[in-house]
Amino acid sequence: MKATVLVRPKQGILDPQGQAVESSLRQLGFAVGGARIGRVVDLDVQATDPTTARAEVKRMCEQLLANPLIESYEIELSEPPA
Amino acid sequence: MKATVLVRPKQGILDPQGQAVESSLRQLGFAVGGARIGRVVDLDVQATDPTTARAEVKRMCEQLLANPLIESYEIELSEPPA
Repeated sequence: MKATVLVRPKQGILDPQGQAVESSLRQLGFAVGGARIGRVVDLDVQATDPTTARAEVKRMCEQLLANPLIESYEIELSEPPA
Repeated sequence: MKATVLVRPKQGILDPQGQAVESSLRQLGFAVGGARIGRVVDLDVQATDPTTARAEVKRMCEQLLANPLIESYEIELSEPPA
């Protein structure tokens, strides 16, 4: 089963990378605001049952993929096409 | 209008960060494969019409947010709750 994890800086946490991107976009003439940069992690997990897979990816997030103090994460699962 | 851009390394492009994460996950005991790491960019754009907004975000991707040689991007738009 394929899992996609979106890891984003939590609200209120400073995001210098987002600020830099926003300022560059404005210099290029785009009217944008509130730019925030996070990571996307795509993974194949062995579990075929969505509940098991989600629980396993959640453990990965807590142990390695995200820093729960400053980042939030969102897990999406999808079956590979048969 | 809110835009979310997912920027990922193209297929076949080496992704050392993904390899490092995959190897760390395996060392932690997780049975995973095919880990790939990309970026997620959240933005507020001024355009309120989805077609205009998408075209504008596409230009941002081509000019700044993604490197089209080695990265692919995906644009998602959502209305902020009224």
